[in-house]
Amino acid sequence: MNTGHHEASWRLPESNPYASVAIDHYRNLARIAERGTFDSLFLADGPVLFNSVGQRPSGSLEPITLLTALATATEHIGLIATASTSYNAPYNLARAFASLDHISGGRAGWNIVTTAGAEAARNFGLDDEPSHATRYERAAEFLDVVLKLWDSWEDDLIVADKIAGVWGDTAKLHPPKHRGTHFSVEGALNVPRSPQGYPLLVQAGSSEDGRRFAARHAEAVFTAQQTLRDAQEFYADLKARTRAGGRDPEGIKILPGIVPVIGDTEAEARRREAELEEHIVYEHSLHRLERLLHVEPGALDLDSRLPDGLPPESAIEGAKSRYTLVVELARRDDLTVRQLIGRLGGGRGHRTFTGTPEQVADAIEDWFRHGAADGFNIMPAVLPSGLELFVDHVVPVLRTRGLLRSEYGPRQTLRERYGLPRPANQYTVPVLATH
Amino acid sequence: MNTGHHEASWRLPESNPYASVAIDHYRNLARIAERGTFDSLFLADGPVLFNSVGQRPSGSLEPITLLTALATATEHIGLIATASTSYNAPYNLARAFASLDHISGGRAGWNIVTTAGAEAARNFGLDDEPSHATRYERAAEFLDVVLKLWDSWEDDLIVADKIAGVWGDTAKLHPPKHRGTHFSVEGALNVPRSPQGYPLLVQAGSSEDGRRFAARHAEAVFTAQQTLRDAQEFYADLKARTRAGGRDPEGIKILPGIVPVIGDTEAEARRREAELEEHIVYEHSLHRLERLLHVEPGALDLDSRLPDGLPPESAIEGAKSRYTLVVELARRDDLTVRQLIGRLGGGRGHRTFTGTPEQVADAIEDWFRHGAADGFNIMPAVLPSGLELFVDHVVPVLRTRGLLRSEYGPRQTLRERYGLPRPANQYTVPVLATH
Repeated sequence: MNTGHHEASWRLPESNPYASVAIDHYRNLARIAERGTFDSLFLADGPVLFNSVGQRPSGSLEPITLLTALATATEHIGLIATASTSYNAPYNLARAFASLDHISGGRAGWNIVTTAGAEAARNFGLDDEPSHATRYERAAEFLDVVLKLWDSWEDDLIVADKIAGVWGDTAKLHPPKHRGTHFSVEGALNVPRSPQGYPLLVQAGSSEDGRRFAARHAEAVFTAQQTLRDAQEFYADLKARTRAGGRDPEGIKILPGIVPVIGDTEAEARRREAELEEHIVYEHSLHRLERLLHVEPGALDLDSRLPDGLPPESAIEGAKSRYTLVVELARRDDLTVRQLIGRLGGGRGHRTFTGTPEQVADAIEDWFRHGAADGFNIMPAVLPSGLELFVDHVVPVLRTRGLLRSEYGPRQTLRERYGLPRPANQYTVPVLATH
Repeated sequence: MNTGHHEASWRLPESNPYASVAIDHYRNLARIAERGTFDSLFLADGPVLFNSVGQRPSGSLEPITLLTALATATEHIGLIATASTSYNAPYNLARAFASLDHISGGRAGWNIVTTAGAEAARNFGLDDEPSHATRYERAAEFLDVVLKLWDSWEDDLIVADKIAGVWGDTAKLHPPKHRGTHFSVEGALNVPRSPQGYPLLVQAGSSEDGRRFAARHAEAVFTAQQTLRDAQEFYADLKARTRAGGRDPEGIKILPGIVPVIGDTEAEARRREAELEEHIVYEHSLHRLERLLHVEPGALDLDSRLPDGLPPESAIEGAKSRYTLVVELARRDDLTVRQLIGRLGGGRGHRTFTGTPEQVADAIEDWFRHGAADGFNIMPAVLPSGLELFVDHVVPVLRTRGLLRSEYGPRQTLRERYGLPRPANQYTVPVLATH
């Protein structure tokens, strides 16, 4: 979110309601995050106008473009853009990410999403969204094609022999010649292989299809988890699936979201949280919740609990895991719809945490030490102030505890930063040592 | 071209054969151009690997991404990216250009191309290129859709009333609800209207279809013209067509390409030209020429003239106007195939001009004063050195003659720089004065 992850953040006096298109706003955020020696910046996205423009800031710059601008304003931080496998052509997306990886010196990441919702589908010539299963089937083939494109130039293709007039070794060019169910892509990419080989592969859906996809392909996973137990279950499940598929479980980093609201004292943090909740327009949120839960308009009452008889997750074609998380959150904590909206307003399904810098650091350390997370997606309720508070007050605590680096050290790619190997090119024949 | 517009430029000792992915190389070019107070930078492009990697530098960064990086390294210069209407989705391209326009403070331009060639088509699920007419029909509908998307937010939609909790005026949002032959696009763009309203619209094909499209839509036209007479004919024709269509002919800027090879003396310039020609690999160029002319491999002989019986332009489905230009150039100047390749190697159809800075300035002034050009697309044979020579030696002459500004003055959008009005929003009802 432009002004913060709390839906009412834009209404605070300090917030810039035009932040969505203000490159200086994002440049400032990137520099604060780099001051906090974060691994990466992450932009969620979809090719659709999500919110009603009447209610809160809507629209945002296209993530690959925005992150390219931020690449030139930073030196170390990773740049992870969300892009849809349902509404892009593999050739174009492969090229854009390869370009970002070149321009940033190997700091690009791709959050692979299939994009739920009929509204997005209708921006791309479809009448309704493809089924959840079809979207994931297309995503798998899409990934197969873009990996072939990224590998279509071997790393040492360019020989640059000016005297002989030979620029590249044609034997090291591998046009995909792909003919599949969803795509036919004949030719090689028109960008040399990039510093990382290809961007770090990230995934963010926690449904059954999403977990299967992540275990097979993802190197990092963003996830929304409300409780330590749920987060541990998810963490253990995904690591086990990854191992079962023959991959090193260390090769997939699990990163739950956390929405911190920070105060010098607990009371001040609570005041801050209450100030945000006062700015929620409950009728608007009610309509969004009705859409998320696939119930009729008017089916929910602010001061009652969720009705019985909501459909099972298997009947949902949209954002499956978010649906289940919200229903379980309401049932577990016995929340009225109004209370549920208050909780969602802060984190929209992500874990909110309100407290002092020490308490926030405790919350982070607790999950990290107890098998729930390899790292965290920090989603401040208000931006930039919440990020500044985190960097200036929580980061020093984490550093003292040895949980976060104090400086970046030499320049690294995003994969190096995550401790992951550079992927080999699928077409390069390994050179064998001879005896 | 990365290392210059002469195909052999990469073989010079001074050239960086890895320039295609070197962001510093492009940043340097942009800064030199801005030192020369150029109006804009222009990147040609296609979603395909054009050249054989064996022969010369191939591939390039995606233009919108690259220009976004250059936007942050410059302050004044316009940034014109080529993008295809045949191989993009309107929603995605509209958003990427709107993002570039926001990030650059209103300096974006779009060179609208339909992309000739079966190779590109085969990267996007087609077996062959659509016909020339079909490509232009799709281009017209594509432009209609993206204009609706760019206008889908009125300029004053955002009201940002924090007290009332109203961010935008929903009455000023206009989802396209487009249902056409090639596209269905329902929803509004997810980016507010950009500083220029939308990018400057540029066109570069000179075929009958291309001229019709340009007269109707383009605000600037890049064109390849070999002689003053041809350039005058093209200029007069396009201005007349524009007037006939009810548009102000001042609203379309005609910009022929020129490939200068500059020396302190004419003899030095000729030596430079000869050095480049020595580095041409004629067999490679012969194969490319055979493809361009749609003749069988082996049909051309280096030391003979073009054969009779080449097809008429109407039979060509690819790059029509380039085809005719090359055939006419060979016939008019009675060139052997080898001589033709020498001429094309420098400019690939664009006018080459070899001489001293004064002579280059004369050549530019001559066309400008005689109804052949509103400006020029400067395409140095070697980069960056040719651009530096132009900026340091030709630009001062042009300034002395009053043909080029000496400084940029206050920040302007690209349209302001071209003296063009900001386009009105098609959905905004003009406020009428009352008496």
